[in-house]
Order: sequence, then structure tokens, then C-alpha cells
Amino acid sequence: MTKNVASILSYYVGENPGVRTNLARILNHGTLGGTGKMVILPVDQGFEHGPARSFAENDLGYDPAYHFKLAVEAGCNAHAAPLGAIETAVSDYVGDIPLILKLNNHDSLAPDSADPVPSVTGSVKDALRLGCVAVGFTIYPGSAQFKIMYQEIRGIAEEAKQCGLAVVVWSYPRGSGISKQGETAVDVVAYAAHIAAQMGAHIIKVKLPTRHIELEKAQKIYESRNIPLKTVADRVKHIVQSTFDGKRMVIFSGGSKTSEDAFCEDIRGIHRGGGFGSIIGRNSFQRPKEEAVKFLKKVMDIYAGQ
Amino acid sequence: MTKNVASILSYYVGENPGVRTNLARILNHGTLGGTGKMVILPVDQGFEHGPARSFAENDLGYDPAYHFKLAVEAGCNAHAAPLGAIETAVSDYVGDIPLILKLNNHDSLAPDSADPVPSVTGSVKDALRLGCVAVGFTIYPGSAQFKIMYQEIRGIAEEAKQCGLAVVVWSYPRGSGISKQGETAVDVVAYAAHIAAQMGAHIIKVKLPTRHIELEKAQKIYESRNIPLKTVADRVKHIVQSTFDGKRMVIFSGGSKTSEDAFCEDIRGIHRGGGFGSIIGRNSFQRPKEEAVKFLKKVMDIYAGQ
Amino acid sequence: MTKNVASILSYYVGENPGVRTNLARILNHGTLGGTGKMVILPVDQGFEHGPARSFAENDLGYDPAYHFKLAVEAGCNAHAAPLGAIETAVSDYVGDIPLILKLNNHDSLAPDSADPVPSVTGSVKDALRLGCVAVGFTIYPGSAQFKIMYQEIRGIAEEAKQCGLAVVVWSYPRGSGISKQGETAVDVVAYAAHIAAQMGAHIIKVKLPTRHIELEKAQKIYESRNIPLKTVADRVKHIVQSTFDGKRMVIFSGGSKTSEDAFCEDIRGIHRGGGFGSIIGRNSFQRPKEEAVKFLKKVMDIYAGQ
Amino acid sequence: MTKNVASILSYYVGENPGVRTNLARILNHGTLGGTGKMVILPVDQGFEHGPARSFAENDLGYDPAYHFKLAVEAGCNAHAAPLGAIETAVSDYVGDIPLILKLNNHDSLAPDSADPVPSVTGSVKDALRLGCVAVGFTIYPGSAQFKIMYQEIRGIAEEAKQCGLAVVVWSYPRGSGISKQGETAVDVVAYAAHIAAQMGAHIIKVKLPTRHIELEKAQKIYESRNIPLKTVADRVKHIVQSTFDGKRMVIFSGGSKTSEDAFCEDIRGIHRGGGFGSIIGRNSFQRPKEEAVKFLKKVMDIYAGQ
Amino acid sequence: MTKNVASILSYYVGENPGVRTNLARILNHGTLGGTGKMVILPVDQGFEHGPARSFAENDLGYDPAYHFKLAVEAGCNAHAAPLGAIETAVSDYVGDIPLILKLNNHDSLAPDSADPVPSVTGSVKDALRLGCVAVGFTIYPGSAQFKIMYQEIRGIAEEAKQCGLAVVVWSYPRGSGISKQGETAVDVVAYAAHIAAQMGAHIIKVKLPTRHIELEKAQKIYESRNIPLKTVADRVKHIVQSTFDGKRMVIFSGGSKTSEDAFCEDIRGIHRGGGFGSIIGRNSFQRPKEEAVKFLKKVMDIYAGQ
Repeated sequence: MTKNVASILSYYVGENPGVRTNLARILNHGTLGGTGKMVILPVDQGFEHGPARSFAENDLGYDPAYHFKLAVEAGCNAHAAPLGAIETAVSDYVGDIPLILKLNNHDSLAPDSADPVPSVTGSVKDALRLGCVAVGFTIYPGSAQFKIMYQEIRGIAEEAKQCGLAVVVWSYPRGSGISKQGETAVDVVAYAAHIAAQMGAHIIKVKLPTRHIELEKAQKIYESRNIPLKTVADRVKHIVQSTFDGKRMVIFSGGSKTSEDAFCEDIRGIHRGGGFGSIIGRNSFQRPKEEAVKFLKKVMDIYAGQ
Repeated sequence: MTKNVASILSYYVGENPGVRTNLARILNHGTLGGTGKMVILPVDQGFEHGPARSFAENDLGYDPAYHFKLAVEAGCNAHAAPLGAIETAVSDYVGDIPLILKLNNHDSLAPDSADPVPSVTGSVKDALRLGCVAVGFTIYPGSAQFKIMYQEIRGIAEEAKQCGLAVVVWSYPRGSGISKQGETAVDVVAYAAHIAAQMGAHIIKVKLPTRHIELEKAQKIYESRNIPLKTVADRVKHIVQSTFDGKRMVIFSGGSKTSEDAFCEDIRGIHRGGGFGSIIGRNSFQRPKEEAVKFLKKVMDIYAGQ
Repeated sequence: MTKNVASILSYYVGENPGVRTNLARILNHGTLGGTGKMVILPVDQGFEHGPARSFAENDLGYDPAYHFKLAVEAGCNAHAAPLGAIETAVSDYVGDIPLILKLNNHDSLAPDSADPVPSVTGSVKDALRLGCVAVGFTIYPGSAQFKIMYQEIRGIAEEAKQCGLAVVVWSYPRGSGISKQGETAVDVVAYAAHIAAQMGAHIIKVKLPTRHIELEKAQKIYESRNIPLKTVADRVKHIVQSTFDGKRMVIFSGGSKTSEDAFCEDIRGIHRGGGFGSIIGRNSFQRPKEEAVKFLKKVMDIYAGQ
Repeated sequence: MTKNVASILSYYVGENPGVRTNLARILNHGTLGGTGKMVILPVDQGFEHGPARSFAENDLGYDPAYHFKLAVEAGCNAHAAPLGAIETAVSDYVGDIPLILKLNNHDSLAPDSADPVPSVTGSVKDALRLGCVAVGFTIYPGSAQFKIMYQEIRGIAEEAKQCGLAVVVWSYPRGSGISKQGETAVDVVAYAAHIAAQMGAHIIKVKLPTRHIELEKAQKIYESRNIPLKTVADRVKHIVQSTFDGKRMVIFSGGSKTSEDAFCEDIRGIHRGGGFGSIIGRNSFQRPKEEAVKFLKKVMDIYAGQ
Repeated sequence: MTKNVASILSYYVGENPGVRTNLARILNHGTLGGTGKMVILPVDQGFEHGPARSFAENDLGYDPAYHFKLAVEAGCNAHAAPLGAIETAVSDYVGDIPLILKLNNHDSLAPDSADPVPSVTGSVKDALRLGCVAVGFTIYPGSAQFKIMYQEIRGIAEEAKQCGLAVVVWSYPRGSGISKQGETAVDVVAYAAHIAAQMGAHIIKVKLPTRHIELEKAQKIYESRNIPLKTVADRVKHIVQSTFDGKRMVIFSGGSKTSEDAFCEDIRGIHRGGGFGSIIGRNSFQRPKEEAVKFLKKVMDIYAGQ
């Protein structure tokens, strides 16, 4: 175990050794293994946005085995996907990459709702039977249906921990409680990350926040305390603080879409701000594989830097 | 085991041997046994549309035993029906044809709802006690009640798999999230098929899609990628792709009603597009038996061709 | 369903359709499919006598896949084996032959005991997960440990039937209650078969009985009623009578070892006496495969005769 | 055990010795140990109001370990926090301070609701695994969602008591049943405290009530009986009466914000009124630590006085 | 996944992907990772023979952390130990080496028994909570207490497999059914290995057999078939055959004690005979660490050779 990994795991000593073993498996795997940083390949977009919107750009992606292959070749720390994809593809890759079974999902065929709520689509027992290291779950803080989601993840997290599985929470502010712009507002993202941490998540995934501040009551304190929010690094630092001062790992999705350079600049910001890594889906699997691997390696190089 | 069957089963190696045995039973049975293609006789129309609308055309159909006889004589791969019909008729046909117990159903007496949800009407234990090889379940992607249905099938599928039963999902887009025309739009059907696959279905049943594209966001990618959708075969190919690139079996209901020739042309399209077969209800059991058998054999001949 | 099979299944109408489906699967499979007769290949000798004594004669038999292949090629109705063998070999043969999971086993390393008792080595859930049609279980009527075995099979049979699995009982008189010669005495075998039937077995397997009568109290009635016991057919007829007058299927192991002709003469006797078939282990799998197939086909030809 | 503690525990003799042991642990710990009074440090504000609003004022508070340290140094009787905070920080403080696991929480991202309901975010099993002495739970008497909350705490309290854990209920009147002013009205607070006592709470936490009387029907009796409500001590006495005449411990949050002196005057009022102590969150952890410790010690000195 | 590992895992395709993942973890770890061979460090000798007899030779071994360190430094594939040792030492090594939780143990304080039976000392849930990849269990074929042990491992194995854990069985012939010399007789060891395989073990551990043949009935067949037993490789080959013709991994303990060279010659024999590796306890941890590492590396070099 490297110093970096040992130091991170020391924050999880309240969890049983099984949970810590599975966190270690993620932290020790792939190109970034041992650095304390991680890049995860998630592929639930087919469920979330439909197959064509997700995979037509690079139609190898229709086959879930492709994503296993991509994650392995690129040296990702883990691959996250819903039940069916893992059931279909896992057998040829057993032991090749840590797996996160995404236990709830939402689709875009469902009528638009101001207050969305995903469906539970798998179980902790499924995760064990499929050899996964963690379960994944999405919550939408800001949705009026918060209680349903919070209590679903609570039950799942409790069972997962008993079985030594790690818990990864996608915390995506969304719902009638906040504006569209508010979904990525720095105060809202910080709050959403904190909620996930309080609910016992081991790894928290949020969107890279903007400088916007959504909540009036929060505005005051940000101003009075002069909390720096100008750069990506500033904002990431605040998110990291908000997840128990960095004692729970927070990783980021998103990043500038204007160019690869701008995207990498964002990654550098995450790194500087003390973020634990990235979860990069469409931006990787929609490119031709070679290009995707190159792109992911570039991102990893940034995280591997001091 | 033929090469075709072995090749299909290799995609299910993430499932236990019991599930694979029951998939093999369907694939090895009847006229198409061993070809890797299937024709299934489903009779839940009595529940869905009422007995007279379903069976008055050919009143032998009021007796569930008739459908067993028809499915056996025609050499179907399996027969699907709700609990009561199977309980009533199975005893004279034990072992004669693989059975799929339809575990939820919807009726037309219920007040019209923009967002329908079927009722669970049977259990995995029922399926075992009745000697079935699989359970069947309908979901309506596009209904606001998606969460109820998705979580019901999730629990049923988990239990079914533990017991070695296969899981067949009827994925029928329907609800306030989509237009009437959208129910058979190719993008929507592809999406609905993908959702079923992600939820762990082993066999997915959808309606034969039209060329219509429902979702604006999807429209763009279909156009920009120039995805061929002109012929039935084109569209079927896209649906097959959308179910893990053909690693989960997708079968089709529906087909042209203008003439038998047009219908058969559609079947040829399904075959050319790589579809795994058809599920043909009213179009068969509402004809006189001899005619129905002849008709089904004709369909099977198409699927049996190279 | 043939008349013969329908007639046999009519005796099991008190059982659920799942149990009858699985009995039908055995009765409809292989060379004797539909005749109402069966030949089963059991391979638990490795566990019972050790691997070398079982498989050195034809060392392909060390591999459990060999027995699947042999049973399939010979057209046996079913293959019976312990957990490990089925777990290891089933995947390449899913759906190719009905399987009976032997749920208890005894080994010869255990110290000699006047009153033996096998160990439970598998579960009904294992049988479902592995795609088996039945569970198998050995009882030793005559052993002082009878209560343990009887109650084990009772619980297993109850659970198996709820899951639609058939129950096959190996009823082998053995223990301090009877002499060595008594183990195959016709009165004792009849009694043992009857006990198995009373415990809810669907198929009962006994050794081919000798003319010896073991029990003094039974002796009287056999004499006074002048029950014919001279020929194999006579004795088989008596055993068949003892299993509810033929309403539960009884099959036989053993047979003359002096020559193949003598063995076949015994088979003819079983057939004439109304026995439902044979279970032939070492006598088949210890021969070279071609020879074994030929031998089993010869036996099946006898059973197939009118 | 001091006389004071023995006297208090005598009121809990209907509970099992495990519950009483854990109450004793709270009563015997810290600066006020043995006095029968308590000061508790609760930190769930991050969940309730967001991390920046809670911790930016004194940003050491982002780290849950800080609150453990503060509670220990200040000699608090117990520390209360949600799941994630305790999981993260407990390991360095095992045995150092009695812990109350807050089992439900509410956040401010959720859309405003006239009738709020928190989410259950932890379990009794979590409390056991983390070494807590009690579970905490918030109810909102006055919310239309009362039934959900009351039944959740009922189930949790039942399970907690079976495990020997104490039950602390935060009883906060809130919802469409009462006015904003009514939330701290003395009749409403008394009523809310009584409901908590009736539901089996061992320790009840309410806000320090105002002189306002909310309920018309209550008004009459307060007037006709001339119940003294003028001073803090008067009102506290009434709340204490309302919790079974002092046989269940009631503690108070809030207090004057005009100055520390005014705040201490309120504490003196609580003490004179027979209140069992205070639960002081933001007012302590948002100050610099030294100052906070000094402040808490001051409060404790008051409670320690005769 | 290397070809060797993929080829071995193909034999376990009847098991769920979780089990296969954990087998892959063992096969892919350490110096021999990917070769299809393994060397495991087991330390249950303290329980079996007492601490001084086990650890006084090299008293660092009193500390269970020492064995983790040794296994990691030597590049073993896995470390096996009883509950307490793993609970005590695992935290500093989470993720550093695959762990096998030994679920039963026997001690030498118990009165000598002709028919020993170990005690179950841990659970499948313990294995999950501690992050283990497998459970280990000892059976004593030949003991009159066989039924207790066989049924214990059966239940444990069923639960372990459902949870995706691999099952390792130590099969040690011992008891009144066999002589002292018989415990390592080649026929008995082959038989014991076969029993473990039939009970569903994924990895089987036996002692390196001698040329002695114990069972009279077996003697005949060894002679008549002229089974080669002269060299270690011959005998290992026979054991490998007896575990489903090499479809279940068998590993060996023991080896010549006359010299390190003689020991290595035995390892070469195991390798030539197709054995899957060694489990080396006292012979490694009773040496000074550096020497032990060197010694284990030497053994691994042999297995790594073609």
C-alpha cells in the first residue's frame, strides 16, 4: 500500500476491513493505482439518454463488453454500469477491473417531472454475485422526492457495508427546489456533496461547479467570509472541504466542452483543488477507442503529477 | 446443442446454469428448435382486452387448453399466458411446451390513465409450481408510473434468476411521456428495448418499430450519423444493436395487417435485421386452428431460412 | 405427450404441474422418450468408492463432462450426479439432458459402520440454480440411523415439490436391522421401495431383488399367499405392486454380472415384470464409450419392445 | 452513581437495564457528570443548512473530528451527529464521549414544503456498530406528514430499546397546523414535548419557548388556571411538567442571541425551571475553539450550581 | 487476463461471476500472478498446535501482522488464517493480498480422539466484512464424524457462493477409518481430493501423497491398470485426475524435510504432475523472514517455469 492510499484509507477506519479492501482495490488499480487519485469510466448513458444518443457516435459502445475493454486498456480505476450491462459482459473480464454496480437509474422516456426520482434497478446481492467492489446510487437533492431516494440509499448502503462493499453516491442537485442554473451552483454542489457524505457515501460524485451561488442564505456567508470561488481549483477546494474536509473522496464529472485543452485545464483545476479524480463517460466512450485511451491517459497524467 | 444455440448461450454465461438451461429449453423446442430463432404464442389478450374481443372471432380460444394445443401443433418455442390460464390448462400438456408465466397484466376495465401501470398477478413461486421455464413481465417506459414497474420487475427478476428461471420482458412504451405515434417510433422502441436489457431481461419483446422518430434530442444523432432506418430490416438491426449489440435476444410483435404476404415480408425483415423471432398472438389464435398452424409454420419457415 | 407418458403422469396428478413437468422431461427424453420406460446414468461412484476404483477402468470418466457426453450420446433419460460434478460440467450441456442432483452421498473412507448414514451434500436451491429436473437422495432402511435420513429426505422432498422438482429416492436396505443377504431379499427390497413411496418419492430406485426372504414374519404371508417369486419378472412385479400397485415408478440397478447376455435377460425380466427401467452406472461408464453406448442402446431396445 | 443520577434513573425503571446503562453513561460523563444535568453538542447543521452556512464561520468545523474534540475538551455529556460524520471521526475518539446517532435529517435544498418531513438516514444497527449510546430522531408535530414521522420513530425506538439504546427525540413543532410564531409558543412546545414523551423518548429536546400561546382552546385553560408563564423559569417548569412531571428528561436549544450574558440568563432560567440541560450547536462550534470551550464551561457552571 | 488464467476460469463457468472474480484475484496476485499456479501462506498452526510450537522458532510469528508481511513480501497468491488473526492484522494490509478466512479449526488441547472433528470458528459474513476472497474449511475424510463436517461445509459453501466468495477445502484424511500411514496414502489422498471436489470446492488442498496404497479394494485396480505411482509427478498427476481431471484446482502441502533441495525436487514433481501449486506454512514462517522470502521465491521460480 502506498503512503497516499494508506493516508486516504486511514479516514475510513470507522468502516469494516471489507469496505476498506474494496476501496483499496479501486485506489490500487490501473494507471493511477497507488497515487490516491482515480479516473472511473461510467456507462449508464444508454439507460439515461437512450442507446442511439449514447452509442451511435461510436457504435462499438452498443456492446457492453466494449466499455470493459476500454476501461481496462485505458487503465481506469473502475468501471460503473447498470445490472444488464455487467451481467452480459463481466464473464470475459472477471478480475480485470473493479466494478461498480449502479443500483438505480433514470430514463428520458419517463414524462418530464419537476421532481425526478430514479428507479432501483439492482441489489446488493446482485453486486456480490457479479463480483463488484462497490454499489453506485444517484440522489437528486432538490427534488421533492428526496425522502424516497435518501431512504433507498440508506438501506442499500447499510446492507452494502455489512457485505464489505463500498458505496459510491452520484449527488446531482435537481428538482423544484432549485433553478436550472442552481444545479451546478457552487453552494448547491457543496451542499449536495455534504449530504452524500452524511449519508455514509465512501466516494461522492458531483458535477464540476460553476461560480454561481443559488441560495440566498448561503450567499451571505460566502461573501462575509470571502470564500474564494474564482477558479476551478478554488471551487473544488470548497467541495472537498464540504465532504468532511477531504476525509471522504469526492470526484468530478463534466469539464469544459470547448476543447480538449480547456477540459484538461479543468482537470488541472480539480487536481490543484485537492479533488480525488474524475468520472468520464461520454467524453471517452463516444470517441474512437484509440483516441479515447489517449485522452484518458492524458487526464491520468495530470492526476499523476505532483 | 447446435452451434447457433451454443453461440447465443455464450452471451448468458454471467447467469447461472439453471437460467441457461431454461433459455436452452426455449431455443431447442419446436419447429425452430436449434436454429437460434423463436416463435412464441402469447395469450394474455383476454385479460388485456376482454374475452369477447379476444376470443369470439374463434371461440375455441375461450378455453386456455386450446392455446396450448395450438402452440404445440404449430411447433412454437414457447407459450406465454397469465396465471389462471396456465393453472387451468397445464395438466394435459406438462412437458409438451416451454411455458412463460406472465407475472403482470393490465385490463381495459380500469379507467383510462395517461400513465398506466399493470398489476402483478403471479409470482416466481407460481412459475416454479406450474413448471414454467420463464417469467414474463410488461413495463411501460414513458409512463409516469415507471418507478413502480421497474422496481417490481427488478425484484421478480432477481428471485427468478436465483431459481434458474429465465426473464422475458415485454417493453411497451406508453404513457404521458410520449405521443401515441411515439409508442412505435424507432428511437423509442430502441430505447425501451435497451432499458429492458439493462434491467436484466434475457429475452426482450418489443413492437415492430416504424420509421418515426419521437425524441427531438435523438433526432439529431440519427440524422448526423445517418443511421439507416428505411426498411424493416434496418430498424430491426438498430433494435438488436440497442440490446447490447445482439447479446440479449429481442423478439417482435406486430407486423403489417394489410395481408399475409405483407406480414411475411415483415418477418423477412426481422430475420434479415438479425431479430431473434416473433411473438404472435391475435394474428394466430383468432384464425381457425388449421389456418393458424399453417400461418405460423410459414413464419417459422422464414426464420429457419439462412 | 404419448399415451404411455400420459397414463403414468395421471398417477401423479396430486402433485403440482411443475413436478409433473419435470417427470415428463425425464419420460420424454432420449431414446426411450415417450415409452414410459427410462434408463438413467448415475455417477456418484467416485464419491462412494473413490476415484480410481470408479474411473481407472476407463479413465475418461475422471472428467465429469465425459458422463454428460455418454448420457447424451446413449440417449439416456437423465443423468444423476453429486454437486461438484454437475457444477463443473453442466455449462457445456445446458438443456441437453435432464439432470438429477444427488443431494446426499456416502464415502468408503469413513470407518465401517453397522448403521451407515450418508451426508447431505447439496440443496434444493443448488438443484434450481443448476437447472436440474429432480433431486436424488439415498436412504438406508435397516440402519439404526433411519430417523435422521427419513427426516432429511422429508424436508428436502417438501421443499423440492414446492419448487416443482421431482424427487428420486435410492432406497437401499442396509444396517444392523438386516443381514448382508437381506439387503437384496425380495421382501426387504419390496418393503424399502414401499417406504420410499410412502415418503413421497416420485421415482424409486432399488436393487434387483433375489429370491431370498429375510423377515420371518413376512415369510409366512409370502408362503400362505403363494406369491410368485421365482423369476426376475415375478419379483419385479412384486416390487412394482409394493410401490402403490405401479402408481409410483420404480427402477432397478444391478443385474447379472456373469455376462452381457445374462444381464440383458435380467432387463427383460424387469420389463416383463412391469418395472419402469434401469439405472446403470459402472456397468456403462467403465466400458469404452462406444461399447457403453452400444450396451445402453441394447438395454433401451429391450425396454422399447412391447 | 450519585443520588441525583440514581433519582433520575429511578424514573426509567420500566426500561431494560441496557437503556438505563446508556442513560447513565450520558449522565455520568463530562463536567456535569453525576449532577443530573447535561450539555450536549449536536452537529447536524451541515445537513440541515448546508456546509458553508454551518462551518465557514469557523472552518475547522468542516472536519467532523473537530466536533468530537470540542465536545471532549468542553466536557460535554454527549455528542450528536448524523451517520457520515460519526463514521468518519469516531475511530480516534472511541470511548471518549457518549455518542447519539441522529437517525433522520432534513436538508434545505429540498423544495420548501408547508409540511416538511425528514429522511431516515441511519439505523439502530448503525448506532450499535458505531458504539453509540443513543439514537436521535426529529419529529415535526404540526406537519401534515406527522403519521410518517411518528411511525418511523416508533419503530426505531422499539428496536433501539430492545438493543439497550436510549432514545432522544428532537420535537420541533412545524407545519401547516401552526403559525411561524406558534413554533415556539409555550403551549405548543409543551404539547410537542408531551407527544415525544408519550412516544417513548428518554430524552426530549425542544426549543426554549416564548410566552406566546398558539392554540385557542389551550388559551382558556392557561388563563383560567392562571398558569405562570412570565419568566423563562416559569415556562421551562411548565415544559418539565408536561414531560410526565419531570420523569422524562427535557433539554433545551436556543436562548437569547442579544449577548452572552442574556444567553446565560436564559440558562439560569432553564436551571431554575428544573430543565435537565441544554443542547448547544451553532452557538458553540461557530466560535473559535478556545472561546467555545470557555463558553460551554460557563453554561455548565450554571447547571452545576445548586 | 492471461491465457492460463482464462483457461482455468473456463472450468468454473458454472459458478457466478463473483466466485470467478475472486478466483481470478488469487490467480492474478503476486509473483505467480497470471501463470495459473499459486503459492499460499497458511497460518493456522497456532490454533492447531499451540503458539510456542508454532512461533517460538521465529518469534515474530506470534504477531499475525508478521504473516501478512511475509506473504506480501514473498509475493504469495493468498494468505489463509483463522478469524482472530485476520481481524487483528488486516487493517494495515487491506487490498495488499487476497485473504482466505479459515472457517473451522481444531486444537490439540482437546482430548485425543480417534475420530476428530474441527469446530466452526467463523462465518461467511465474517469473510465479507473482513474483505476476504475465499473461505477455507477442513474436512477429515475417514473420521466417524464425517457427516457433521460434510454438512457444515455444504451449508457454508452454498452461502459463500451466493456471496461470490470462493471455497477452499483442506481435505485431510484422518480418523478411525484409516491407518496413520493411510493418511498420506496415494489412494486415500486421491479419494479425499475427489470428495472435496464433489462437495463443490473450488480449490482443494491435500498433503503430498506417498506411494502407499491403503485400501484393499483400491489396491486391485491400481495394480490391474498399472497406474504409475513411482514419482511425485506420477502421484500428483493421479490426484489432479481425481479432482475432475484437473477441472478443479488442487494444491499441495508437505514435501521432503531432509533438505531444501529435496523439498524443491518435490515442488518440481508437483509442477510436472500438473498440480496447481503449494500451500507452505511452517516451512516458511518458522524461518527468519529474509530466508523465508528467498525460500518461497525459489519455490515460485519452479512453478513459474514451463
